[in-house]
Amino acid sequence: MSDSLKLALLGCGTVGGAVLRLLSEQSDDLAARIGRRVEVAGVAVRRPDRHPEVPAELLTTDAEGLVTRPDVDLVVEVIGGIEPARTLILAAIGAGKSVVSANKTLLAEDGVALHAAAAEAGVDLYYEAAVAGAIPLLRPLRESLAGDQLRRVVGIVNGTTNYILSRMAETGAGFGEALAEATEAGYAEADPTADVDGFDAAAKAAILASLAFHSPVTAGDVHREGISAVSATDVARAAEIGCTVKLLAICERVTGADGADDAVAVRVHPAMIPTTHPLAAVGGAFNAVFVEAEAAGELMFYGQGAGGQPTASAVLGDLVAVARNRLAGAAGPGTTGYAGLTVRPMADTPTRYHVSLDVADLPGVLATVAQEFAAHGVSIATVRQDGHGDAATLVIVTHRAPDSALAATVTRLREMSAVRGVTSVLRVEGL
Amino acid sequence: MSDSLKLALLGCGTVGGAVLRLLSEQSDDLAARIGRRVEVAGVAVRRPDRHPEVPAELLTTDAEGLVTRPDVDLVVEVIGGIEPARTLILAAIGAGKSVVSANKTLLAEDGVALHAAAAEAGVDLYYEAAVAGAIPLLRPLRESLAGDQLRRVVGIVNGTTNYILSRMAETGAGFGEALAEATEAGYAEADPTADVDGFDAAAKAAILASLAFHSPVTAGDVHREGISAVSATDVARAAEIGCTVKLLAICERVTGADGADDAVAVRVHPAMIPTTHPLAAVGGAFNAVFVEAEAAGELMFYGQGAGGQPTASAVLGDLVAVARNRLAGAAGPGTTGYAGLTVRPMADTPTRYHVSLDVADLPGVLATVAQEFAAHGVSIATVRQDGHGDAATLVIVTHRAPDSALAATVTRLREMSAVRGVTSVLRVEGL
Repeated sequence: MSDSLKLALLGCGTVGGAVLRLLSEQSDDLAARIGRRVEVAGVAVRRPDRHPEVPAELLTTDAEGLVTRPDVDLVVEVIGGIEPARTLILAAIGAGKSVVSANKTLLAEDGVALHAAAAEAGVDLYYEAAVAGAIPLLRPLRESLAGDQLRRVVGIVNGTTNYILSRMAETGAGFGEALAEATEAGYAEADPTADVDGFDAAAKAAILASLAFHSPVTAGDVHREGISAVSATDVARAAEIGCTVKLLAICERVTGADGADDAVAVRVHPAMIPTTHPLAAVGGAFNAVFVEAEAAGELMFYGQGAGGQPTASAVLGDLVAVARNRLAGAAGPGTTGYAGLTVRPMADTPTRYHVSLDVADLPGVLATVAQEFAAHGVSIATVRQDGHGDAATLVIVTHRAPDSALAATVTRLREMSAVRGVTSVLRVEGL
Repeated sequence: MSDSLKLALLGCGTVGGAVLRLLSEQSDDLAARIGRRVEVAGVAVRRPDRHPEVPAELLTTDAEGLVTRPDVDLVVEVIGGIEPARTLILAAIGAGKSVVSANKTLLAEDGVALHAAAAEAGVDLYYEAAVAGAIPLLRPLRESLAGDQLRRVVGIVNGTTNYILSRMAETGAGFGEALAEATEAGYAEADPTADVDGFDAAAKAAILASLAFHSPVTAGDVHREGISAVSATDVARAAEIGCTVKLLAICERVTGADGADDAVAVRVHPAMIPTTHPLAAVGGAFNAVFVEAEAAGELMFYGQGAGGQPTASAVLGDLVAVARNRLAGAAGPGTTGYAGLTVRPMADTPTRYHVSLDVADLPGVLATVAQEFAAHGVSIATVRQDGHGDAATLVIVTHRAPDSALAATVTRLREMSAVRGVTSVLRVEGL
């Protein structure tokens, strides 16, 4: 083996640039921690002329040539998206290189195949940066809690939507106004779809569920609802019952169709959570993940979920690990999909709903409404009725019931003549 | 190698019993995650007759014989204390076994020698359970943040003292009363010295500082003050300035004598922290550790810091890791003391003080008191004066100054004729 470990960097945007900067600034520390120097062998980019800060002799547009170069030991992929990242990572693995990636989209879609390729080649595939930025989360799930049984993982894993929801709660603004503010402040991208519609959080949920439950879960398995339908009324109603609205990624063990505890439910949707819940205090662009394990009990991990520097910190942590493993001649722990738990459809997943209704203030309306819940097998936990003039507001929070039963109840309520309007429907968690 | 990995368990108290239970309950899962079954080869205890729940053929009083048995691969040490744990761990390492320990006292006193022995023998020495129970903390510090530069680690790492201080804040009780309640509730031991006087937290601080700053720090290097001198007045004064009192373990990079950023300060003492600080909300017997890193920014880890099950969860997580490493034929990352930073004495460590004084309500008293701070080079941040009758209360919060200058100021204040009493002195953090 040569005197230094040679690193190929794929992509040089915000994260890639931060990785290069930290590699250079912390060169001596990294060498001491790894036991050998790490040297950048090349940086693959699409437009070399756009990277004047990188020495020209390192820049290349031939990414595949770079990752298969015989002198390259380690590959860091920070391009993002499915292609060409997948082809390049598979080429690197095939050539015996260990890979560090920050690519949630790819890992959530094709993690099983990528892990299989890495295991086959005896190399590492690490991706701590793919979920919750700098927060050490995947390593704790994969290693620290490897001797425990996880029950639930509930996280705020998308900073953009958390910023928007935080602003809606603080200012009373509607979704559109808060999104415009987030865009202005640089917290939302020009096309905010991936964040706002929950695609980003769903990819992260799939990765978390796969690791937590040792079962293959892809982004397509995740029930996904974004926040664009969350209204100022929803946020106000949440406050009235001591809650706040968050976009949650929820991964949990649930009973399967036969009643055995053999399935998982994985979903991303806005939900009301009590302001006393540890996740409620997570404001702005921060991320936090709450974990419930059989023996360890409740744990929470909190920190910055995005940004060049925090993401680069996670990438470099992985880089030190795979470099050490390489020098030790062994790969680190991969993933184990041994449990093979099935993903329960959202319709069958037990959830709780908050429903606010405008109704005619007539005797018997509450009874009629309550009867509709009962007809769908949904038990009501609390109900509050506020009369005003000839109208009244009903605020109902249910117990847990299959999501399809709750949805069907709401559909029926919208059709009832006594109901003038369903003004807010949101799931409730952690009450 | 035999069909299963053979485990020797040293000690079978609350934690050891929970380890055995989890090993048995999760036998299939652990085998799937490790890639091989783990079998208990023996359990070393002092009094075999006290462990009817353990199969008699596994029990032995010959701990040294057990850890050096040729068929044993892994050793879990949950005896605690210095001896015989040290001799047994060194014997196990010398015989080529990998070791998982929950022993903060030993690691904080002799970590350097134990790590050197493990490195020499090419085996693992893991001890996640030694600090903050089930909270994944040492692995994140040692691995996830290995590519970053840590600035500070501030933790609530002792559940007993946190319970006592939480109760004092909730009920207004004094220390003695809250301690009695903690003892009654099972949160304090019959001899609470190790917890109350900060020995437990100091050992954990030493371990955290060693890992965070890649420098050898022992418990003896840690400035240590317990909570027995914290009064109901201190807690009330804290509330008046929007703070709460916590026993903190603080590990931070500080400038050295020559002004270079080349030293560390490691201390355990009660301090007022703002109620808005993430650590302020950590109540009862929970633990939490707040980390500031250059690139990652602020991170927090939260969970149960003690108890048989949570501690056993951390032990088993380490066990899975060392078992995997053994099967891979490689040791995991050890510690690196390469940085060799020196520990700055408490006298030179910059801190901030809160001081409450009863003074005569005469013109010029504030000026006289302020002059005393100035004479010691201490700058005052805020002062509040409440007059009542011929007396007044002065509440002063300083800026940062060397701890010795602050202590000397307080000594002088106690001697001043204008000062009738110094009613509360506590350091302030995180304001």
